[in-house]
Amino acid sequence: MLFLKQVRRDGHLAGLSSRVGAMQRNPELDRLRVSIDNLDTAVICLLAERFKITKRVGILKKERGLPAADPDREVQQIARLREVAEQSELDPEFAEKLLGFIVAEVVRHHEAIASAD
Amino acid sequence: MLFLKQVRRDGHLAGLSSRVGAMQRNPELDRLRVSIDNLDTAVICLLAERFKITKRVGILKKERGLPAADPDREVQQIARLREVAEQSELDPEFAEKLLGFIVAEVVRHHEAIASAD
Repeated sequence: MLFLKQVRRDGHLAGLSSRVGAMQRNPELDRLRVSIDNLDTAVICLLAERFKITKRVGILKKERGLPAADPDREVQQIARLREVAEQSELDPEFAEKLLGFIVAEVVRHHEAIASAD
Repeated sequence: MLFLKQVRRDGHLAGLSSRVGAMQRNPELDRLRVSIDNLDTAVICLLAERFKITKRVGILKKERGLPAADPDREVQQIARLREVAEQSELDPEFAEKLLGFIVAEVVRHHEAIASAD
């Protein structure tokens, strides 16, 4: 009884207890979801760094009067990422769509930088 | 003259020479682009692993007769990723859109698994 009260008072133990409960319901699904969450955290952190760099690229392009879009660079990026995707057993079509999705966001940021006069 | 021929015959040196040329054109832009490419490679590799895990989740759900979609889990994922995004200085709106983009692909995969009877 004293132990139960301690568990309830202790946030860490309570969290652990609830996690054990979830694992009892479906341990393999729970384990896979923890891995998905870890990978998502890593992807978000990497993309946060990527946007910091593309922001710097946007400022640099503005300073030097370079156009925001660079079709040659984009063709190279698509070809390279499709190859990386194939090597890592990811659908190259998805990799290309993902790059398009990210670049659309980058262009939106660059336009915001370009119009900030 | 002999050195030039060696450079031309040696793929690595030729690649290095061409990269040095690009850096002379705009060293900072070139440096930033190398970092963008490295981050993109990492993101693609992490997502390749993520899809391997969600494929296993899809098979598990099918085996146990669980529904493909899990609205409670999705609500938790969105809230968690928005928090991760804020902590890493990424726009939470973008993080949520990205998760939607990835989950749409996962659902497409799960439907393919579910219909493969």
